[in-house]
Formats: sequence, C-alpha cells, structure tokens
Amino acid sequence: MNWESLYSQAKQWVNEAGESIRKSFNQRLSIQTKSNANDLVTNIDKETEQFFIKKIKEAYPHHKIMGEEGFGDKLDSLEGIVWMIDPIDGTMNFIHQQRNFAISIGVYEDGVGKIGLVYDVVHDELYHAFSGKGAYLNETPIANLSETSVKKSIIALNATWVMKNHRIDHNLLIPLVRDARGTRSYGSAALEMVFVATGRVDAYISMRLSPWDYAAGAVIIKELGGVVTNLRGEKLDYLTQDSLFVAKPGLHQTILQEYLKGGKW
Amino acid sequence: MNWESLYSQAKQWVNEAGESIRKSFNQRLSIQTKSNANDLVTNIDKETEQFFIKKIKEAYPHHKIMGEEGFGDKLDSLEGIVWMIDPIDGTMNFIHQQRNFAISIGVYEDGVGKIGLVYDVVHDELYHAFSGKGAYLNETPIANLSETSVKKSIIALNATWVMKNHRIDHNLLIPLVRDARGTRSYGSAALEMVFVATGRVDAYISMRLSPWDYAAGAVIIKELGGVVTNLRGEKLDYLTQDSLFVAKPGLHQTILQEYLKGGKW
Repeated sequence: MNWESLYSQAKQWVNEAGESIRKSFNQRLSIQTKSNANDLVTNIDKETEQFFIKKIKEAYPHHKIMGEEGFGDKLDSLEGIVWMIDPIDGTMNFIHQQRNFAISIGVYEDGVGKIGLVYDVVHDELYHAFSGKGAYLNETPIANLSETSVKKSIIALNATWVMKNHRIDHNLLIPLVRDARGTRSYGSAALEMVFVATGRVDAYISMRLSPWDYAAGAVIIKELGGVVTNLRGEKLDYLTQDSLFVAKPGLHQTILQEYLKGGKW
Repeated sequence: MNWESLYSQAKQWVNEAGESIRKSFNQRLSIQTKSNANDLVTNIDKETEQFFIKKIKEAYPHHKIMGEEGFGDKLDSLEGIVWMIDPIDGTMNFIHQQRNFAISIGVYEDGVGKIGLVYDVVHDELYHAFSGKGAYLNETPIANLSETSVKKSIIALNATWVMKNHRIDHNLLIPLVRDARGTRSYGSAALEMVFVATGRVDAYISMRLSPWDYAAGAVIIKELGGVVTNLRGEKLDYLTQDSLFVAKPGLHQTILQEYLKGGKW
C-alpha cells in the first residue's frame, strides 16, 4: 500500500470536489429532509459523495467506504482500509450561508486513523494530516497543541446542550460554560474539530455524531497532541453514533474529571 | 457636508487599519483586562482606535466620536455628526483565533444612521451601506431581506442566554431555540449583524451591547429591510448600553409577539 500516493490523490480529489461545489452556488439547490425537518440533504451532497466513491472504487477497488449519504458500503467491521466520507459537513450552513461547511475524509487502516482531510471549501483552506508526518493548513505546518485552563478556554458547543434535552443532563455542562472564557457554535463538526486543531477554540463538545463527522478531524487533532474521546472519556469505535469530546491535552482531562464525570452519555 | 466623500474616506481608513491589523499578527500582543477577566483589550485595539480618531479629527474637526476604548468624546447627545467606532469587535476572537473579528464604524447625523462599515479583516470582506443608496459586500450589492418563519430560521445567540443568568429570564428564549432550525454563535456582534444582513442567519439576539457594537450593523440591516430594536421591541437610543434584537422583516415581529413579549429586559 502506497500511502503517500493515496494521500496525494485524496487531496487532489478533495480539491476537484471543492471546485464543483463552488460552481454549484449559481445553481438552484434541490433540498430534501432526512430524519427530521432540520436534517437536510441536497443534490450536491449526494453528487459529491458519488464523485468520491467513483474515484476510490476505480483506484482502490478493495477499499471499503462509509459515506453520510449512504452510497458507500454497510460495514460491521473496520478491518482493512476504510474511507469515512462526509461530502458536505454542515449542510444547513451550505444551504443557508453558502459557507462554513467542509468536505471531511478520514482514511483508516484496521481501525487506526492514517489520513485526515477537512476542506473549508469557500475559504479554500485544506486542513490535513498523515499520521506521524505532521498536520498542515494548506502548505503551512500547524503547531502542536499546548495545555490551557478552563477559565482561559473557548468551548465550541451548541446552545441546545445547556437546555433540558433528552440526550444529556444539561446541568453538568452549565458549570463548564459558566467557568469557561466563552462559547462558540459554528454548525459543522468537521470545522469545529479543525478549529480545536488550530487552537482557535480549546475544546468541542457534541452529543450525537457519526464516524464520517469526526474521522478526519480526529486524525488531525491527535497528530497535534489533542485528545479525542466520547463524553465518557472512552475511545470512539468508528462504527456507531456517539457523543464527541475533543480538547487540548490537559484540558481534556480536567474537563472530564471536574465536569463530565458521572454524566450519563 | 459631502457625505459621498466621507463615505469614500471612511472606507479608505478602514482598509488602511485592516492592513495594519493583519501585519500585527506577527507581533506579540499586549493583552489587558477591562471590566472582568474575560473582557479583553489589546494594544492593537487601542492603536486602531487612535488611528481612526486622528484621521477623523484632521478631516472633520467638528465631528464627535464615541469609541469603545475610550479615546473619543464623552457624549450626552447625538446632535450633529457622530462617529461610533469599535476598532476590533470580537477582541476575544482576535486574540484566540486571529480571525472572526471586525472593524465596525457607524456615522450618524442627529441620531440617524447614515453610513455603516463592518470590515471582516482576515477575510477581506467589507460590508457597507450608505443610507438610501444600497448595501454592499465589497463591490457586490447585497439583496434585500425576505420574510421567513421561525421553524426555518437560524438564530445567532450565545449559549449563556439559555442558561439561568442575571440579565434575562432564560425560560423565554428556550422555546425559541427549540422551535428554530438551529443556533450559531460567532463572538462578534458586528459580524453577527452583517450575517443577518446577508441572510446567513435570520436573527441575532444579545443581552448587553454598546452603541459602537451595533451602530454600523444597524445601518446595513435597515438598508436591506431588516428590523433593529432592543429585546422589548423599542428603538435603540445609541447613547446607552442595551439589549439587541435584529431580524428579517416579519420574523422580527413574530419572535417579538410569540416569544419575547412580557420579558423583563
């Protein structure tokens, strides 16, 4: 397996797909709903996923693919090489804002992250990492993450999670939000993860995500010394939906011990 | 008074200041706190405000200036021509992210907004309006705002305001967040206002802001048919701190009637 060549091809495909998405801004979108009225999908999400699947199947017929829009394989194991693809992470932003969404592609070997690519299409910013070889924003190396305290940290977290809801005990998150310097919410898990990777926010918390949402970001964050778990502090299994908690080193442990421990999530 | 000339000069100064701020990214910032540990100011905020004041005083010695960092005049009336300046709106983002902050300048005549400039320095996007002559993002006209429903709207609102706090009854905002399509929080009032102006979000709510935070954005939003009030639905007075509620036409009235009415804010 030539990983260097795969890395370079994957970046090329992401750039091509980004170019197509930018061109689509002049077209009228076809918008449908999935699990609920606010779970949106467009023809561009579907076409972009199909583009990647075609490219991968041609170049790597034995690789497996998990894609958000369901054109990939149904997997019950991570054996071999698995591509985890979200063609447009942040579809609501794509529709409403025509910005603040990303292409997210993680490539894993036997469950271990090898390559992560998160492409902020509108700002032409490709965040990428090849495990063990460093992480980059376009051509610029991203600095390793350093430790910080809760009181100096900005946490990416949606307002929904500090209101009573059926997924979590919001009373455990409220003290964290009070103690932190501030919170932000951008509406794209892939972007929020690379904002942790680049130190623009210090942690990101979300209640229910799928492997294609965080597969790429996880490779990039880990490469820089950040920590990636679910809200119980456990490893993600990359086969099921789970909560997500990523943070700078040190801060991850502090938040887990002082705020999240004992929560049911 | 030659307003066309003032408009063009103000844009020129904003561009110059933006260039200086971008250059400052290589310097070490001097960071101080103001009213509390999370109310931050840097040497760049101060230098930028002083730059604008010098330019305005030279060109328009009789104009009055309100600036966030306190180098302007102390005003108890809006008579005459008043510049309302936030040299860096979103200082926390400036420090942590080196993006997602803006220069915000509103020019008012006898309390009436004439010119609004919001400059997203890092993305080189200048949102600007001259009252009655249209609003633009750089050279491109921004479309008028159209009506929308709560259930299809994205609301910019910080998580803090749906937690128990001493400014508002958070129980009035929670149903709004539940009914809306989603919420976002970007950490810069000036940017959040131009995101309303460009339709990227449909409404923006904040609990305590100062005139320099919203003076520019208000001119731009009103020019496009949006509505700018405090949370009680009253006009802002531009002399005191107040809450802020801006939204698309129609949506503003709906939210005010169905969610905010009766609140103490």
